[in-house]
Parts: sequence; structure tokens; C-alpha cells
Amino acid sequence: MKKVLVKASNGTYPVFIGLSIFESLPELLIKYNLPKRTFIIADKKLESIYKSRIKNIVRKIPGKKYCLYLPFSEKLKSFASAQLIISKMIEQKFGKDTLLISIGGGTVGDVAGFIASIYMRGIAFVNIPTTIISAVDSSIGGKTAINYSGIKNIIGTFYQPAFVLVDPVFFNSLQKNELVSGFGEVIKYSYLTDDKFYSKLLSNYGLFLRKDLDFLSSISYECIKIKSAVVSQDEFELNGIRRILNFGHTFAHAYESSSKYKLSHGKAVLAGLVSALLLSYYNRLLDKQQLEQMLALPLKLKSHIRLGNIDGKGVINFMKNDKKNRQGKIQFVLIKNFGELIVDFYSSKKSIYSSIRETKKWFF
Amino acid sequence: MKKVLVKASNGTYPVFIGLSIFESLPELLIKYNLPKRTFIIADKKLESIYKSRIKNIVRKIPGKKYCLYLPFSEKLKSFASAQLIISKMIEQKFGKDTLLISIGGGTVGDVAGFIASIYMRGIAFVNIPTTIISAVDSSIGGKTAINYSGIKNIIGTFYQPAFVLVDPVFFNSLQKNELVSGFGEVIKYSYLTDDKFYSKLLSNYGLFLRKDLDFLSSISYECIKIKSAVVSQDEFELNGIRRILNFGHTFAHAYESSSKYKLSHGKAVLAGLVSALLLSYYNRLLDKQQLEQMLALPLKLKSHIRLGNIDGKGVINFMKNDKKNRQGKIQFVLIKNFGELIVDFYSSKKSIYSSIRETKKWFF
Repeated sequence: MKKVLVKASNGTYPVFIGLSIFESLPELLIKYNLPKRTFIIADKKLESIYKSRIKNIVRKIPGKKYCLYLPFSEKLKSFASAQLIISKMIEQKFGKDTLLISIGGGTVGDVAGFIASIYMRGIAFVNIPTTIISAVDSSIGGKTAINYSGIKNIIGTFYQPAFVLVDPVFFNSLQKNELVSGFGEVIKYSYLTDDKFYSKLLSNYGLFLRKDLDFLSSISYECIKIKSAVVSQDEFELNGIRRILNFGHTFAHAYESSSKYKLSHGKAVLAGLVSALLLSYYNRLLDKQQLEQMLALPLKLKSHIRLGNIDGKGVINFMKNDKKNRQGKIQFVLIKNFGELIVDFYSSKKSIYSSIRETKKWFF
Repeated sequence: MKKVLVKASNGTYPVFIGLSIFESLPELLIKYNLPKRTFIIADKKLESIYKSRIKNIVRKIPGKKYCLYLPFSEKLKSFASAQLIISKMIEQKFGKDTLLISIGGGTVGDVAGFIASIYMRGIAFVNIPTTIISAVDSSIGGKTAINYSGIKNIIGTFYQPAFVLVDPVFFNSLQKNELVSGFGEVIKYSYLTDDKFYSKLLSNYGLFLRKDLDFLSSISYECIKIKSAVVSQDEFELNGIRRILNFGHTFAHAYESSSKYKLSHGKAVLAGLVSALLLSYYNRLLDKQQLEQMLALPLKLKSHIRLGNIDGKGVINFMKNDKKNRQGKIQFVLIKNFGELIVDFYSSKKSIYSSIRETKKWFF
């Protein structure tokens, strides 16, 4: 079992990573002195696949417990489902001394974390992400969220868990689509550090798609180390450090929106990384050789992603509405070299168009 | 203009107290470098009384602004009205760089603070309480709240404002009922410090009921100093220090509930203080002389409060359901002397009954 520490204003918390460590959950809850009343929110998908595994572990958690399975999706990140879950907590007489555990992907964790942050002004929270993308991204850093009025993540809080537990055994049930999605964020991290992690992924990406659990475990650890180092320096997104995590995301959000969310977040990130690399090249931050080196990995997955119908002008319009913009200008995170990112970069419209056009050629 | 500092984990913020300091709001916003997009939530009651005063000041706030008046009451502390306000903020294109200002009593401040804490994971917040009870109590300490499923304040966050502005000119429009309510919490504070503040209130309580604004200003300052000293030591209600603020409140909450909220919070606190003093006496924490001295002030207001129909057994049942109890035992905050409070006190049922019975005799 590996451990990464995340610094936060109200203390440091650990992220545990390891195969089959879900089995250690009952001992960890005791070790971290968490409340003996446990309310669990889990993705209904897991019920059919891991029902007996989850049941066996939950049985060993001491004290009162209640397990609520819900069919999570982006649609369930709403006030309505938060209220539904809260009503169940009240009905089952869970008070301030409750531990809320989330078991599932990013949507479950986002809603559960939000509820933990507002129920009786905050109760203890443990996050158990079961997809790669949530393990390496949304579960680390304390962002909670629901959607409202058609706007993703417009409501939420910063609220840190007591700990995060990443057991890649859960990744075993991920479908190809979810794997590719997860790989999108994983590749992003590889640009944020020296080129060793990138090389490791490039030489072994086959292990990723074949779901080699030792490999998934080891790269989850690498990504979590990078993310935790960043968020530990900028818990509340105040000093700009956290912005490098948005590498590829200005394009990605626009690709997602333009596809009406048919394109998954991780796949949009993968395409967005390609666009951001091209834009860095057009702005002479990368030379041709660097560009080719950095494109090699995301392009290995090009057959899994289709941008075909997405309209370039529409993409730019979506980018203009990005909430991170200032004074109506589109802000990009670009790259000079592995581990050398430039935030708040403004580019000419011409270069932006070219990046989108070239990206569309790859993911036709 | 007086200033009291409140310590919080993410920095210290000031509470300004002074007659007519509302006029300084535009300069204070600039001095504290707050966002130039201002969304104001105000109590509709203030619209008729202070419309031109508020309008004149709001006009001087630089940048974009929007003022939403709502008829606030306990009923408006709901998910539904939070969503209504958020929809208006989205419709009016207020982003992450928004300052939310609350102008009104505790209900406005509770909801506005809650929205500020969850809108785009937190926006800047300034609280301008316009009632005595909210100025000395709910506006200080960062508690935000809405009600849900019939339970008061079950949903909320700890979220500190950029500053709090207390202008007792607003107290001028308070009705007798609201004044007496405010006096309930004010008297509570007088037990939490040496007996000078108590003596000042006892000799001058007539000035309070006649709304002498200099006097109201001076005692608001005293109360805020006490509250801020307490919450600065226990921001998240973790170490028990904040519990002394609940002096009189175990009884008060039960009196409020038993009256089906016909009895206002502040009046219930006033009666609750009398019960807590009696219970302290029955448990030999106070002698007869101390009891009489400490009862003198709250009993000056006895003609304003009626507990007549409230049933003693019902009150005890409500106390048993208090969320602050542990292992089903009713926990009281009792008093040994001015400034010497005892928290987590368990009393015999007989003494509790006697306290309620005696209190009912005073407030028949």
C-alpha cells in the first residue's frame, strides 16, 4: 500500500493506493478514529459487479451503517438528488457524528463530497474512487460539485476528505471507453513533470489498455503524486498554481460542450491535449521535434476518439464563455517543455483555428 | 467607527460597528479590494423603510451591481429560495469574481452566506445585519444555514465574510418585539464575562427599549467583542469552547419548538436564561443571592414574554431530541459565576422540571 499526503488548511490527509486495499477499509476507519455511524453512497453499477465484495467489507465496519446505491450519472449531480440523499440520512437518523463514504466514479464523489460539506455544517468524508479518471483527478484536491441550470459544477465547495482510498481492483470492470477516458487525464499529468513518466506510458500503453492492474496501480500513484503536489500549494485555487492542471482543458471543455456531452470528459481532454500541443507549437513555444515527441502518446489512442462533426466556430464560441476567462479573452495553458507550463496565455484566433482544424484531422 | 477582529483559519476579518457607517460601505469595499461585481440580497421590509438610503449607497458602489429584495422569514431559509437566488445570479451573469452582500436580519444573512459558500465553490461575502439579534449573534462566526425537512439549520457551512458592517441606525425601525428578542441574546452575553456589562445593562435597560442608538451601538460592540473572542478560539465548533454560547439555549430551543415557533428565538432565549439560572441554583452552582442578582435583568422584561400554554413534558421531550445531546442525555450549559460557565452538565429530571415550572410562573 502506497501513501501520498495532501496538504490542506485544516490538516494533511492521506491518499492510499494499492491492489485490494479496499479490504483494509474497516481497520483504516478505526485507525483514523472516524465516526462509528457510516452512511455509504455507492454507484448502482457496482452493486451488480462487486455486491458481495462491498457487502463483506461493509459488514466489518463497526457501528451503525446504511448503504444507498444510486444510478449515478452527470444528471444525478443535482440539488434534487442531493436532497433525496439528505432526506434518507435524516430519515435514518444520521447526525453530526456521521461518516459519509462515497464509492464510485467522479459523479458519486462530487455529490457525496458536496453533501458531506453542507450536512450539519460538515461531516467526516471518505472517498473511494472506482474509476481511473476519478482516482487520479476529481477525488484529489477537495473539489465537490453539483450542476445547476445547465452549468456543470457551478455549485460546490472545497471540502477535504479524511482520506482517499484507491484500489485498482475496481478498475477491472471498466469498459474500453472508460479506460481511454482515464488515459486522457493520465497523459495530461505526464506533461506536468519530467519526461520519465511520459516515456514509461509511451513504452507501456498496451498494459494500460489490457488493464494490467500492477501497471494501473503504479501510474495511479504517479498521477496522484503530481496532483497532490499541485493542490497542496493552492488548496482554494487562489494563487494560480492549480491552473496548470487545466492543460488541454480549455479545448476539452469546448469539445465536450460542442458534442453535447456525447464525447466523454477524458476523451475530450485527450483531444484537447493535442490541440494545446499544436497551439504551443504555433506560438513557437515548442519546436517541431518536441511537438512530434509529445504528440506520439495521445495519438496512439486516436482510433478511439471522434471529433468529426464538431464545428470549429462553435468550439471557439464555447471557449469564449469559459468561466476562467478574463475580459472576454480566451486563456490557455500552454507548454514549453516537460514540466514547464505557461498559464494565462492569449493566442491569435488564427492559431486557435489551426489547432482545432489539425486536431480534427487526427480525430476525424 | 469601532472595529473587532475575528480570527479564522483563512485569515482575520473585521466587524465594523458605528452609527451611520453604512454610508462608508463603498469606500470599505474598495479598501478591502473586493470584486467589482456586486450582487445584493436584502430584506423586502427594508425596501419601504430605507429604500432611498440603500439606493443612494448602492449607486456609489463601483462596477456592476444588482439588488434583489425578498420577503425574508424562516420559511425562506430553504433549498428552493437558495436556488431562486442562484438562478437570478446566473441569469444576470455574475461569475466567480462576484461580491455577495446581505442586508437584513439573521434569515437573510444565513441564506446569503450559504449561497456565497457554494456558488462557484465560494465567492466573496459581506454581511450587513440590520437587527440587533443578527448583529450580535448570527452575523459573527461564519455559520451559514438553511432549513430542510422541518429541521432548523440542518444544512449549512462555516464560511467567513470579508467583513461585517453593523450600523445601529437600522435598529431604529425595529419593533418592540424585535427589540425584546435582541435583548435576549444581549443579556446572554452579559453572563459570559465579568459583571460590569451586566450592571451596565441593568442600570440602563430603559435606553435599550427606547432605542437609544448610542447605547445600542455601545452594547452591540460589547457583545460582538465577546462573541468574536469565543469563535476565534473555536471556528468549526470542534473543541467545545463555542458551546458556552449556548447558555440558556437548551431550554430556549425547546420553548421555541413547543410554541410551534410562535415564540421568537430571542424571547425564548430570555426565558431559557431564566430556566438555566434556576437549574444552576438547583444544582448548587449558584447561591440564593447570586441567583437573585442574575435574575434581576431578564425579569425586567417578563411582561413581554408569555410561556403560558407551553407544556412542561413536551418541553423535556423536545430537549431530548436536541442534536447536541450525546447518548440520549440532555446536556446543559450552566453557570457558577459571571464568566464561569460549565458545559455538558447533566441534571436530574426533577430539577429540570422545577426550572421549567418556575420559569412558567414568571412568564405566565
